[in-house]
Amino acid sequence: MSRSQRPVIELICVGTELLDGHADSHRAALALRLGAAGLRLSREAILLDDADALAGVVRAALRRCDALIVCGGLGPTFDDLTREAVARALGRDLVFSPRLYADIRRKFARWGTRRPRENRRQAFLVRGAAALANRVGSAPGQIIVLPRPNDSPQTVALLPGPPREMVPLLESEVMPRLRRAYGRGLHAATLDLHLCGLPESAADERLKPLTRQAGPELDFTILAHPGQVDFHAFARCASARRARELIARCRRQALRLLAGHVVGDGSMTLESAVGRLLRRRRLTLAAAESCTAGLLCGRLTSVPGSSSYFRGGVLAYHDAVKRGLLGVKAETLARPGAVSAACAREMAERARRLIGADVGVSITGLAGPGGGTARKPAGLVFTAVAGPGAMVAVRRWQFPGDREAVRQKAVAAALCLLWTRLRP
Amino acid sequence: MSRSQRPVIELICVGTELLDGHADSHRAALALRLGAAGLRLSREAILLDDADALAGVVRAALRRCDALIVCGGLGPTFDDLTREAVARALGRDLVFSPRLYADIRRKFARWGTRRPRENRRQAFLVRGAAALANRVGSAPGQIIVLPRPNDSPQTVALLPGPPREMVPLLESEVMPRLRRAYGRGLHAATLDLHLCGLPESAADERLKPLTRQAGPELDFTILAHPGQVDFHAFARCASARRARELIARCRRQALRLLAGHVVGDGSMTLESAVGRLLRRRRLTLAAAESCTAGLLCGRLTSVPGSSSYFRGGVLAYHDAVKRGLLGVKAETLARPGAVSAACAREMAERARRLIGADVGVSITGLAGPGGGTARKPAGLVFTAVAGPGAMVAVRRWQFPGDREAVRQKAVAAALCLLWTRLRP
Repeated sequence: MSRSQRPVIELICVGTELLDGHADSHRAALALRLGAAGLRLSREAILLDDADALAGVVRAALRRCDALIVCGGLGPTFDDLTREAVARALGRDLVFSPRLYADIRRKFARWGTRRPRENRRQAFLVRGAAALANRVGSAPGQIIVLPRPNDSPQTVALLPGPPREMVPLLESEVMPRLRRAYGRGLHAATLDLHLCGLPESAADERLKPLTRQAGPELDFTILAHPGQVDFHAFARCASARRARELIARCRRQALRLLAGHVVGDGSMTLESAVGRLLRRRRLTLAAAESCTAGLLCGRLTSVPGSSSYFRGGVLAYHDAVKRGLLGVKAETLARPGAVSAACAREMAERARRLIGADVGVSITGLAGPGGGTARKPAGLVFTAVAGPGAMVAVRRWQFPGDREAVRQKAVAAALCLLWTRLRP
Repeated sequence: MSRSQRPVIELICVGTELLDGHADSHRAALALRLGAAGLRLSREAILLDDADALAGVVRAALRRCDALIVCGGLGPTFDDLTREAVARALGRDLVFSPRLYADIRRKFARWGTRRPRENRRQAFLVRGAAALANRVGSAPGQIIVLPRPNDSPQTVALLPGPPREMVPLLESEVMPRLRRAYGRGLHAATLDLHLCGLPESAADERLKPLTRQAGPELDFTILAHPGQVDFHAFARCASARRARELIARCRRQALRLLAGHVVGDGSMTLESAVGRLLRRRRLTLAAAESCTAGLLCGRLTSVPGSSSYFRGGVLAYHDAVKRGLLGVKAETLARPGAVSAACAREMAERARRLIGADVGVSITGLAGPGGGTARKPAGLVFTAVAGPGAMVAVRRWQFPGDREAVRQKAVAAALCLLWTRLRP
């Protein structure tokens, strides 16, 4: 394998419980730390507690990768087979370490718990491995360095499965070695743009002139959530300056290609972008919701400090509440009806007036699954913004998907309309 | 490969963002459904958007497994390579399906959004594959059946990555085939109880006499979400009758051990249990929220048909709205203040009166991170229920965690209080 600019790093997680559906955070924990070091995870395999399968996957991974992290299967019980399987994959044997065993016995004495006989198994090392001291649990980690002719050596790290034990060892023992061995000369920079009002495929089409430039130094991804699309660019270069410059160039080009659809960078969300605009313009906000019944306001107030601009809302789920408390005209509710542009407009205006805010936003629609007609099918939604001043904007949408999807998309559409009306 | 009692089922998830650390729920979603069918996942691989790597892993998996599920990479964009890679691994070509293309065009016409040219890519099928209709998104799934001499055929299913699209296809199209082809001989039954008003550790302790019975036929899990605890029991037996009987016995014992804390079974949620009680007693509901600003009503109305009992709500985020629109007394807001039992009580009573409902529910509190004092720290929350009739209940809580955790726990606490007051 020739060492390119991209070291190949793979993860193997061992544990039958993982394949029974238990969540794990190994990939996330490793990816975060690799990313910060200009490195990247290339592949993950999740395996049963089965020594044959594990040995096979380790062997295959070592044909591809520069570094391999194996998590789990280092415990004391019969189904903890990582030590044996990795030794077999490397064609080595296991060596009993009296020093490790003494350490383990001391730990149990300090914890004041009876040491099970099986713990002796944890004092075996793959021949040639260095033990990694685990301060939290009883299972020591192991690290094995395999020299390669004309190349940097390969690294195999065995880490305990529980995140409370795995993460400290990863940070203190494994990451410094990976950074030294494979991170040298590689520097990362990233771009993370949140878009609004542009479907995934339209964003993809617009970004083509940029994403066509993907190559060894640059990667791109477009990610769609209900009602939101994100664009990521990832640079890995021989110099930090080059990575920063590439990303700055990507950013300029993306902003130009996506003109008017970029809400913000990084941790900026649609709701925090709306909040920032309201705060900057010293405006207050009120809302009226029907089919979303609080989801819009819930998102608006997920932003810490939103009490400085968000005043309150009226959830007019039933038409009697639209008329009685909110004050939508009986004629509007009779015809064109509660799901109409006219009703959305009145809801936004009335919410603003009732609550005493500068801007009113509203959502009315049919989330489904029931209640639709041929003229007004489930998924039909109107969003409106009234203010600041005399400005009013109303939009009509026909969303696909189930009740939850329609509601989430309606909220994103209302936030997007707000953002569009508020920005300079 | 000889067909033992344990069919080998593998999962491949494709997506560079997954290896950058994004969480995914594919394994959990699949494991849950396989488990219910007496089947089990043997392995998962998570891969970059790289057609060569994917084709290689598909080829290797097909040498081992009976069924292979590939999730992700079916979108319209440049990095969606699953169709091509799987075709290559099987030595087949891709066939353009005019019928699928017409379907996709119809979908976009119905959604009222412009269809990008790239969507044409989604109308290609691996030769011999059957298309699986995706009702939520534009990417159809695909299923390919590969005959094997002297054995049941292999199944390869390609599913879209977004869980909202993947799960319905998995349930309606893939699971029935897997159950038919590989589920024979092993029968499963499950129990899934949702608890309320009992912390995880208390549930664990109460359930000990039951969970001690875990063995080759029976598995137990206690799962905690913010403000909610679930108890799962899982039986896998040689006969369906034996599995059902075991689970029925577990259910009886669990209900006795958890007396008064079981909201419901299976898909019954706290909000749907509250809805069922309101409907059964022909009562209507109104809400007033402060720190949760709509999250409670959002959850109450996530239940299809909730419009038959939920009337509406007032989100009184700012104290001026609590006083002006909702009508909380100025004295109450001055002292003991907006975060108090008295204010929660008035909010529930006023919401019910204003909106004209039989029952009022309220939440007021400090979600944090800012705004707390020594006497009223962040995480202090009051929930109240007024009605039916003259009944009023108020509860005080001090929740740990960040803004989002406090808000979610407050919503669960209000739902739990409602459920407790409404049940016979």
